[in-house]
Amino acid sequence: MRTSQFPLNTVKETPADAEIASHQLMIRAGLIRKLAAGLYSWLPLGLRVMRKVEKITREEMEKAGALEVLMPGLQPAELWQETGRWEQYGPELARLKDRHQRDFCLGPTHEEIITDLARNEIKSYKQLPITYYQIQSKFRDEIRPRFGVMRSREFIMKDAYSFHLDQESLQHTYDTMYQAYTNIFNHLGLKFRAVIADSGSIGGAVSHEFHVLADSGEDAIAFSTDSEYAANVEKAEAVAPTGSRATATEALTLVDTPDQHSIEEVCGFLNIPATQCLKTLIVRGEEDTLVALLLRGDHNLNEIKAAKIDGVISPLQFASDEEIAGACNCKPGSIGPIGLKIKVIADHSVILMSDFVCGANQDGKHYKGVNWERDLPVPDHVTDLRTVVEGDPSPDGKGQITLARGIEVGHIFQLGTKYSEAMKAGIINEGGKNQIMIMGCYGIGISRVVAAAIEQNHDDKGIIWPANLAPFQVALCPMNMHKSERLKEASEKLYRELQAAGIEVLFDDRKVRAGFMFSDMELIGIPHCIVVGDRGLDSGTVEYKARTADANEEIPFADVIDFLKAKLA
Amino acid sequence: MRTSQFPLNTVKETPADAEIASHQLMIRAGLIRKLAAGLYSWLPLGLRVMRKVEKITREEMEKAGALEVLMPGLQPAELWQETGRWEQYGPELARLKDRHQRDFCLGPTHEEIITDLARNEIKSYKQLPITYYQIQSKFRDEIRPRFGVMRSREFIMKDAYSFHLDQESLQHTYDTMYQAYTNIFNHLGLKFRAVIADSGSIGGAVSHEFHVLADSGEDAIAFSTDSEYAANVEKAEAVAPTGSRATATEALTLVDTPDQHSIEEVCGFLNIPATQCLKTLIVRGEEDTLVALLLRGDHNLNEIKAAKIDGVISPLQFASDEEIAGACNCKPGSIGPIGLKIKVIADHSVILMSDFVCGANQDGKHYKGVNWERDLPVPDHVTDLRTVVEGDPSPDGKGQITLARGIEVGHIFQLGTKYSEAMKAGIINEGGKNQIMIMGCYGIGISRVVAAAIEQNHDDKGIIWPANLAPFQVALCPMNMHKSERLKEASEKLYRELQAAGIEVLFDDRKVRAGFMFSDMELIGIPHCIVVGDRGLDSGTVEYKARTADANEEIPFADVIDFLKAKLA
Repeated sequence: MRTSQFPLNTVKETPADAEIASHQLMIRAGLIRKLAAGLYSWLPLGLRVMRKVEKITREEMEKAGALEVLMPGLQPAELWQETGRWEQYGPELARLKDRHQRDFCLGPTHEEIITDLARNEIKSYKQLPITYYQIQSKFRDEIRPRFGVMRSREFIMKDAYSFHLDQESLQHTYDTMYQAYTNIFNHLGLKFRAVIADSGSIGGAVSHEFHVLADSGEDAIAFSTDSEYAANVEKAEAVAPTGSRATATEALTLVDTPDQHSIEEVCGFLNIPATQCLKTLIVRGEEDTLVALLLRGDHNLNEIKAAKIDGVISPLQFASDEEIAGACNCKPGSIGPIGLKIKVIADHSVILMSDFVCGANQDGKHYKGVNWERDLPVPDHVTDLRTVVEGDPSPDGKGQITLARGIEVGHIFQLGTKYSEAMKAGIINEGGKNQIMIMGCYGIGISRVVAAAIEQNHDDKGIIWPANLAPFQVALCPMNMHKSERLKEASEKLYRELQAAGIEVLFDDRKVRAGFMFSDMELIGIPHCIVVGDRGLDSGTVEYKARTADANEEIPFADVIDFLKAKLA
Repeated sequence: MRTSQFPLNTVKETPADAEIASHQLMIRAGLIRKLAAGLYSWLPLGLRVMRKVEKITREEMEKAGALEVLMPGLQPAELWQETGRWEQYGPELARLKDRHQRDFCLGPTHEEIITDLARNEIKSYKQLPITYYQIQSKFRDEIRPRFGVMRSREFIMKDAYSFHLDQESLQHTYDTMYQAYTNIFNHLGLKFRAVIADSGSIGGAVSHEFHVLADSGEDAIAFSTDSEYAANVEKAEAVAPTGSRATATEALTLVDTPDQHSIEEVCGFLNIPATQCLKTLIVRGEEDTLVALLLRGDHNLNEIKAAKIDGVISPLQFASDEEIAGACNCKPGSIGPIGLKIKVIADHSVILMSDFVCGANQDGKHYKGVNWERDLPVPDHVTDLRTVVEGDPSPDGKGQITLARGIEVGHIFQLGTKYSEAMKAGIINEGGKNQIMIMGCYGIGISRVVAAAIEQNHDDKGIIWPANLAPFQVALCPMNMHKSERLKEASEKLYRELQAAGIEVLFDDRKVRAGFMFSDMELIGIPHCIVVGDRGLDSGTVEYKARTADANEEIPFADVIDFLKAKLA
């Protein structure tokens, strides 16, 4: 391609609403343009990149044996009513009425549609297992669309759905998909982690998220220093400590802690480390009860874990000040477990504490030198309540937890029978009986991958595309070609040779200054740049610069193709 | 692909709502499934075909220098309000409100969006001309969706838009697109015509439709027996006859024609041919006037042509019986031009009539032996008012008009400045002045092409795919492979060889009867079928059957690849 025929839409200004690097760079490099809040048009350069993500994804789906289909974006309400999601789904579901006043929505996902298709097409166990996928526009009416295509209202997804006779078959396809996803992100050249995830509102027991690692990522990921273990921080297990409790050395004392409410304030006031202070939080339980959750002062409550405890309301609801006053006779800053009349649930770390500090259930007072068994009973219910921190042992016993930030670009779920049961998607099994199918589902945010790749790979000059994502592999930049017929001829010849060699080359034949040309090529992130100039022609050389290198290299003109082929191999 | 891994979804039953062959066959062959009225899911086999249409279209767009973009399907009302189409567009435009109660529509077309993009991205005449295209789901809330994907509510379109400094440049791109469309439909292997068309509500002066010819087509096309001339019947010019009027031989007589209203009734009653009877129609003109339109009795009014006449209301409105009574003193069946006090417009053929019959503006009476000049003046306004008929001279002077039925699958328009003017899409021209861009637009109904191809190419056994549209080129059908290890081995080997030769082969490895297998392969329309059987193995042969042939051929096993390669070349 030539820039005269494939015009670049680079701009100098960073749009005011672009908060993160990928959003800024996608606008500046001319990959996308905003149409309205959360709605973007893909310009030719951006679409070239997205098509590469699609292609790599499609190849791996085919290899995994998935069959491509294309379902409508417009979905009738009736199917969503069958699963109950018409009512459950919030305002993110864009709804509309057709001219006959029938209810439809714009699909954010296609579980209902594929389950309907499957219950009609799949009649016998002999047709199982089967996996369908599609690559398509999805819609989500975000309350606050932002970060460009990272959180937009219309986006491109690859979604796949599998149907099975039994859990073993689901696990097999799930593993195949896990491997396909791993291949996709490897092939895309992205640093990523597959992490154990919470399956959230989609349902199902087992799920993994695929995160592209980037400091700006919205999600925190915990992974092991020494093993493959990785989990969303929401889900990462804090292993119960193995040591034993130290013997009590202090006496139980009631101390004044006037106006000291937070853990930091109390620890500062009493001059103790946060590890020595107990944190007591009151949440709502079922049947109008309250529940006290105990954590070590330096640990944070993991609300997802807490909400999964029997008897605790999910999603987690914190008690109001009035409810706390009613149950503990004090304000939130002075609660403690001694004498507390409500159910108490302790994190594993808590029961190894000794000589600790906790609230005294009297405003402005705490206990010091508290010890389990001597001063209060060890709680009956001890579990994992906290969010993991750096240095925690890895749950698989290998290495320690380290934290990173990630951008979720893929998610695979073992759905089980949530949708097939609700929609009566059954088949005749080998015994001639009707049996509900078991399902899996597997998504990749195709458009989001483009943004995540930039978030991970950029510098102050612009985008640094991984080889397989670059819109062009090589930029051919002649310097002042319009002033030198000889240079023009040599450049055109080299362009033809590069094309003939199957190299995706962008020939910058614009009449612009060299500096302008280079900064455009850096901004749009072309991995390899060949600079041809009159001086080089004299010595029979061109200059080569890798996007990531600081300095140029001189290459004999005659070697350019072989040199680039080696670089691209 | 193997049918065990790429399952066919053929069904025996023809759905009750499928009125036309393509709809029936797309369901029966398992290409699509209905989700709701006018909404279809594409199954793997159907999607393979549609992807081929997409690929061929994309290749020709790239060759034509068009740049691929992807705009949102969800479009903000503001842009449609700028062009006035938010109000003008009827209920076909699917509208919805987002969570903030802002108005959006689901794009049936993208003129507003691309014009908005262009006015932001294109600043200088140096950036012109430029053509953008996309392949994408479009939405139209049809009042009565039918014919499967032929007239559905969500469908795949290729839409392209070009921007120009002047008409000459537009004409050049228009011609390039015309050629690209011709290439596309040739490459698809479809019999088609590019016809001069009415540009309808999209606007603009020049437009061509591309029609796939099929007896079931909704549109009538007029084309020349001897030249390239072709036009939508709505638009085809009826050439003014060149002969002169015969001399009057009859006297003007008032005759009773009791209860004879239609041309057929009057002609039957008076025993004259329809060519001898004048047809007078009253339509509404501007400023509350009425206009009489005169046609020869055997001709039909072309409402599109009539509505384009100055002073006539567009779209055409017929006068009510009351209005006719007021202007003509009679009911519609007895109107005639003699003594009529309203404006009269005659079709070219009418003024060559002599000794003719017309209504007498008295109920139950007609004049006989009417002659121009002698009995009434020749109308001042003579023009082309009628729809062409078989045998009319071709407007380009070469040959005669013949009629065919077609399915509109493409439409190209010279839009002019309709959208760019309304949306102030200007650029700085060479003289440094702001100038409104001139636009063209170019659509292909990608999903509709699949249906149209079937409408044109099928028989009572099923679909007959043109080579480049077939989901697979070759079906490999082993007979009772599961009973013969030797046959299984030979079939598997042949399958590998076919794949290695780059032939798209569907290996039917199902445990089904041979007859079932053949009828499936015929139904889904695979062009070439290789049958392998134990008997053939003995003699070293396979059977070959073309989808369109009545009989099988015997081919030496060793020659199969070369034989098929020659067939596919």
